[in-house]
Amino acid sequence: MSGRYAVILAGGRGERFWPLSRAAKPKQLLALVGDKPLIAQAVDRLEGLVPPERVLILTNADLVDATRAAAPGVPPANIIGEPVGRDTAPAVALATALVKARDPDATFAILTADHVMGDLPLFRQTLAAGMDAAESGNWLVTIGIKPHEPSTGFGYIEMGESAEPFSGIPFNRVARFVEKPDRATAERYLASGRYVWNSGMFIWSVRSIEAALRAHHPELGARIDEWARFAGAPEFAARLAESFAAVRKISIDYAVMEKADNILVAEGAFAWDDVGAWPALERHFPADSEGNIGIGDVAAVRSARNIVYSKGRLTALVGIEDAIVVQTDDVTLVCRRDHAQDIKALLARLREAGRSEVL
Amino acid sequence: MSGRYAVILAGGRGERFWPLSRAAKPKQLLALVGDKPLIAQAVDRLEGLVPPERVLILTNADLVDATRAAAPGVPPANIIGEPVGRDTAPAVALATALVKARDPDATFAILTADHVMGDLPLFRQTLAAGMDAAESGNWLVTIGIKPHEPSTGFGYIEMGESAEPFSGIPFNRVARFVEKPDRATAERYLASGRYVWNSGMFIWSVRSIEAALRAHHPELGARIDEWARFAGAPEFAARLAESFAAVRKISIDYAVMEKADNILVAEGAFAWDDVGAWPALERHFPADSEGNIGIGDVAAVRSARNIVYSKGRLTALVGIEDAIVVQTDDVTLVCRRDHAQDIKALLARLREAGRSEVL
Repeated sequence: MSGRYAVILAGGRGERFWPLSRAAKPKQLLALVGDKPLIAQAVDRLEGLVPPERVLILTNADLVDATRAAAPGVPPANIIGEPVGRDTAPAVALATALVKARDPDATFAILTADHVMGDLPLFRQTLAAGMDAAESGNWLVTIGIKPHEPSTGFGYIEMGESAEPFSGIPFNRVARFVEKPDRATAERYLASGRYVWNSGMFIWSVRSIEAALRAHHPELGARIDEWARFAGAPEFAARLAESFAAVRKISIDYAVMEKADNILVAEGAFAWDDVGAWPALERHFPADSEGNIGIGDVAAVRSARNIVYSKGRLTALVGIEDAIVVQTDDVTLVCRRDHAQDIKALLARLREAGRSEVL
Repeated sequence: MSGRYAVILAGGRGERFWPLSRAAKPKQLLALVGDKPLIAQAVDRLEGLVPPERVLILTNADLVDATRAAAPGVPPANIIGEPVGRDTAPAVALATALVKARDPDATFAILTADHVMGDLPLFRQTLAAGMDAAESGNWLVTIGIKPHEPSTGFGYIEMGESAEPFSGIPFNRVARFVEKPDRATAERYLASGRYVWNSGMFIWSVRSIEAALRAHHPELGARIDEWARFAGAPEFAARLAESFAAVRKISIDYAVMEKADNILVAEGAFAWDDVGAWPALERHFPADSEGNIGIGDVAAVRSARNIVYSKGRLTALVGIEDAIVVQTDDVTLVCRRDHAQDIKALLARLREAGRSEVL
């Protein structure tokens, strides 16, 4: 068996967790749930499956130092900065190049940094089965998430005919990848039992994904050997800066997954939460009898259904309902629960006002 | 003309401005409105009328140092601590003793520390007229406030027959002092035009108030000479601690004003606001087009009718209406505007929890 690697994609800005997340400290660097930053939890989840020296992390170039600090178990050289954000397909091509430079016979998983997971033994079993599947042929393997509600926030994968199981985990051929649906469509998907959420987790051999990129998005397929050649060299960052910026922004779903016909999907039945915005914390913390969730130092009277994140200072609520309150050293956010999506509008206003120190 | 003095009563705890006000820093020590603490503003208002060396301040014994710091224009020896709180009649008796020790022929005003006033020339004219009236005989003089709404939060004074004007200000005999009325009664008072709010401002000669106390509440009348004897002596605080604690708690309204028949009232037509709790700030600060009042660093989107006091940190509101947000170094209060009276319940809970560091 040749080497197994994992590449964690950890870019992104995470405005939806402002003011705790900032441009210089996005969501994956925060310990929103649990004691460690989400990126460190993503590394820890691989224990027994992929050792830290075979874990690579791709992040924004300006977040490399902070990511190294947040994931101290991973060798610093394994944490690589993308010079510019180009969505997931160029990131996958770069990941393929980096792994190929170490071991062209390797299989690797593409994982995400900003999810919270539970049932970790089952997660590891599923991921190991995906590795087995990827090593059994030229499959592109993905782990879909068994949906528990008709979410319109995820893309879906329609499962096709049954395939061979690996390590006790059933697999299906993929019938198709579909975009985020409207509510009615999502309800239909959920009722059918044939759809899973697109989690962004993929497993493939260097050979399989390189072939798929060359076939379906040659612009990126052609870059892999170029990037692999100078991987680890002193001039890597400078050379990458030139060529990475030149590629088009495109997701791996568009570039490959919606086109390829050699895809297997496992139905991930472990707990998986994208913790998309502040209201999602209610799924991870206990509430008091009035439905208030207090993380940190919180006192409340005649108040209900609030989510308060207040470490290092006291937040006192009187007669407040359905609010989110978030404290940081320099900022307090008070937001109606059903207006969390308007935090972006607030940040736009602060940007206009030149308030970069709080962004 | 003999000496004119002013004694500012500056006790009280001011829980209603928590968390800005604390046990060790009550309302009169805060610059809630304006650039200086309310107590300093009360001293400044007397400019041209009573010089700072003739201004005395009575406060709680444990607030003497903080009051001296907040009113640096007043000689430290003029700021006297009451060993225990005994309401206003004992405070008036003590004030009488302190002024008598300096000048038994003096006239003095009893003033409050925790009000915000406007139209200061008219205030000074009214106060000077009250001094003139008090010096013209044995009158007990008070300044009532012309009511602009049927408030149930103040006692009222019914004006009787017209008396001689002083310095262009009309005076009336007082028909009676009445307690805080219910709403219907307050509306009747307002409509009649014959009632003014009891402001707690009084002007009288040492001789007149001492005579009134001896006549109507001899327990306190008898203390005046005792306290005057050791006023200014090194043993003053120790001696006062013994005897002040021994007197009964009673207001000057009960002890004297509701019984005396030699009272004159001037109708104060200057702006006067007791700034009783956070919602009162709306009367002193401009609102934006959505009715938000931001004091300090505040950003708001889709939010209306909030009052935010945020000096030294950014408060960001998203989709929040009718809230009060108050920031201090260690605490954030978020309170519905119409629940400001429930701050007391919150403080009770914090006291139970042993949170004295935030009380």
